[in-house]
This record gives sequence, structure tokens and C-alpha cells, in this order.
Amino acid sequence: MEEKRHAGILAASFVKDGMTVGLGTGSTVYHVIVRLGERVKEGLRIRCVSTSEATTELAESLGLDLIPMSEVLNIDMTIDGADEVDRSCNGIKGGGGALLHEKLVADISRIVVWVVDSSKIVERLGAFPLPIEIVPFFHMQLISKLEGMGFSPRLRMSGSCPFTTDENNYIIDLETGFIEDPEGLHRKLKLMPGVIETGLFITTADIVVVGSKDGAKVLRNTR
Amino acid sequence: MEEKRHAGILAASFVKDGMTVGLGTGSTVYHVIVRLGERVKEGLRIRCVSTSEATTELAESLGLDLIPMSEVLNIDMTIDGADEVDRSCNGIKGGGGALLHEKLVADISRIVVWVVDSSKIVERLGAFPLPIEIVPFFHMQLISKLEGMGFSPRLRMSGSCPFTTDENNYIIDLETGFIEDPEGLHRKLKLMPGVIETGLFITTADIVVVGSKDGAKVLRNTR
Repeated sequence: MEEKRHAGILAASFVKDGMTVGLGTGSTVYHVIVRLGERVKEGLRIRCVSTSEATTELAESLGLDLIPMSEVLNIDMTIDGADEVDRSCNGIKGGGGALLHEKLVADISRIVVWVVDSSKIVERLGAFPLPIEIVPFFHMQLISKLEGMGFSPRLRMSGSCPFTTDENNYIIDLETGFIEDPEGLHRKLKLMPGVIETGLFITTADIVVVGSKDGAKVLRNTR
Repeated sequence: MEEKRHAGILAASFVKDGMTVGLGTGSTVYHVIVRLGERVKEGLRIRCVSTSEATTELAESLGLDLIPMSEVLNIDMTIDGADEVDRSCNGIKGGGGALLHEKLVADISRIVVWVVDSSKIVERLGAFPLPIEIVPFFHMQLISKLEGMGFSPRLRMSGSCPFTTDENNYIIDLETGFIEDPEGLHRKLKLMPGVIETGLFITTADIVVVGSKDGAKVLRNTR
């Protein structure tokens, strides 16, 4: 899709020689990684940290130098996708199930860039179901509590079994309706015993690159 | 130790016929379980939920009826130990490494009873190192962050390998010094990406049974 390619190429241009770069996952980040592979062949020297097996495979096939997360205390720039982004550059992530990895990589990144097509930009978050990563043996109790809080929680399935993340946790998708206070909701959920992480990313992205048919534009987080 | 036995016997007397009972772990809870075993032989009918393999073994050997956590939405009464308890019935738990299970069991319990010997009662929490359960692949980054926050974090080891919990997570023990604001510290730590749960139990215990040489007394959480 042309929008995603435009966004990916612009975002890849932000990467500078010598950087440690966090690589997200998804169909827009795909174009970032492809462009970084071209830039490396042209002489760019970077080290990359991957957030998923799919990204690891793609990056390796393009000759990018990958280092394990366990060897990295700081990342210079992470480029990742998002499922929804509001005008304050808050977002919902985790549709692909890698929200914990993605949040931890973002947490140690000096600059976080999100690349999205224009359909992901919303006035208010919440049309996309909010994923939360949870302790598996407590899922029934959490679903009951979340129902009591007025959400419509759904255990994410993979066929007839619960979907498991890379850390062997479960994911509950929450129908939240429009979210008035994303930070407040994140805190409320993350503080619940059994919740490991939420897909609400608050003031995480410093830059959002939005693809359009004829190019890409940049939104900055001014907070 | 006599103090622990006194506390355990008094706490076991709170259990009523028909209850679902959560069973903690430790040298004081041992006496609770032994006494419950005697009461069951005398005709008490209860169902129990265990928080550890050690407790499961002991309870089974005494003929207690155990049901898995996954089948329980609510527990009537949980009896557990604690590593430190203040006068407001806040506590530090996790010295034994089962803090996540213990917190989840407490979270769905109508009444939580802690049994301790008198050495565990303190004016202010914090002499006992505070355990936090964390995402393993992020331990180096969390230790670095916690050092930056002024704590002295130590990854809990088991011989030459990191200690792993029942959920295959790691534990970091924090030298906090005396804790001015236990709830504030819990929130700050639990909200950190990569932290799954903390060993600070805030307003968790409804009743604390404290053993002494010649009996046991009861502290109530009046909040």
C-alpha cells in the first residue's frame, strides 16, 4: 500500500550513522526495514534490536546487524507501528500481540517514531479493542473483574486455545468505547493484580509519521 | 517456635464450615494448615486453594480438599504469612518468591488474615528487602533504572542462575530503606514497564494474628 511505503521511507531517513535502532513489527514497519536495508548497503552503520521473530527474519535477510535486547541498556531510536494514534500522539498497540516487547523497547529508547497510514489517526482512542497482557492462571478472575468495571473483555484465542505471547502470557481484548482519559485508564488497568502491561502507550511517540497517497507528514509530540 | 503455633491455631479458628479457604505458605501458615487438618477430621467441611507446591503437598497429606485456582472466582478467607507488617496492616511479602500467587489469591478473597510472630511487626516497612517480580528479558534494564531511582536492586539468584518464580519470572530484591509511603511506592514500581507485581501489600490484610510466647493477639485493619 502506497501510504505505508511513503511513511516507511520518510521514517527510515531519520536514522543516523552509529545509531542503535529498535525495530517494531507490522506492515508499515516492513517498509522502514526494507529502506534501512538499502541504506546499510549504501554504507549506513547501525545496530538493530528486534521486537518479534517476523522482524528478526526480515532484518537478517536484508543484512541488518541484530543484537539481543539483553545486551542493550539504551536505544537511540525505535521505529514502530500503532493500531490507533490520537492528536496527542497517544496510541493503542498490541493488535499483533507483541505489546510487552514493544513497550519495553520503547521504554529504553531516546526517540520513538511511529509509522502509520492515515486510517490510524483518530480524534479519540477506543474504537480499536484495547489489548492487555495478563498472567494466564488469573484470566477468569480478571475477565470477571473487567466485566464488573463495565468493559466487554474477550480472551484472545488462537483457534480453540488461548493465544499466548512470546512471554507465555495471555491477552484480553477490551471493548472500551471512546477513552476519555487514556493515561488514567492505563494506570487503572496496569495497577490491577495480574495485569502485566496494557496496550495504551501514553506520551510514548515523539514523532508520528503519517503516510498519505502522495507522501508523508510528521506529527510531533510537543508535551 | 511457640509464637508461630499460637498464631496459627488462633487463625485456623476463624475458618467456618462451607468456606473456600486460600492457604499461603511459610513456617507460620504451616501451623494453620495442621490445625485445619485436625478440624477437618473433626467434621469441618472446607475447600482450599493453595499458593505453592509446598502448601499443596502438606495440605494433601492432611486430607484437605484442594481445588485449582482456575476454578475459583471468589475465596471466602485466605490465611497467609508476611515478612513485615506495619501498624496499618500493610506488609512486605515475597521472601519465599510466591508474591504473585499470594497477591492474586488475596485479590479475590473476602477476608485476608495474616499470621506472624511478633518479630514481623514493625513501626515502618523497609528493613526487609522489597521483592518485585519482573519480566526476565528486561532485568538488566530494570536494574539500571532502579539504581537511577536510588534503590540498591539485586537480582535474586539460585546458585549461579537467576531464581525463577512459578510463572518463570525473575525477582529483584530492593533495598529501600524505611518506606515513607508504601502505597505510593507500590504504584510507582507497578507502573514501571517490565514490573509484573510488587511485594508491597497495601490494605490487604483485614486481620493480623500476632503470636506471642503465651498466646496470640489480633490487629484489625480499620481502614
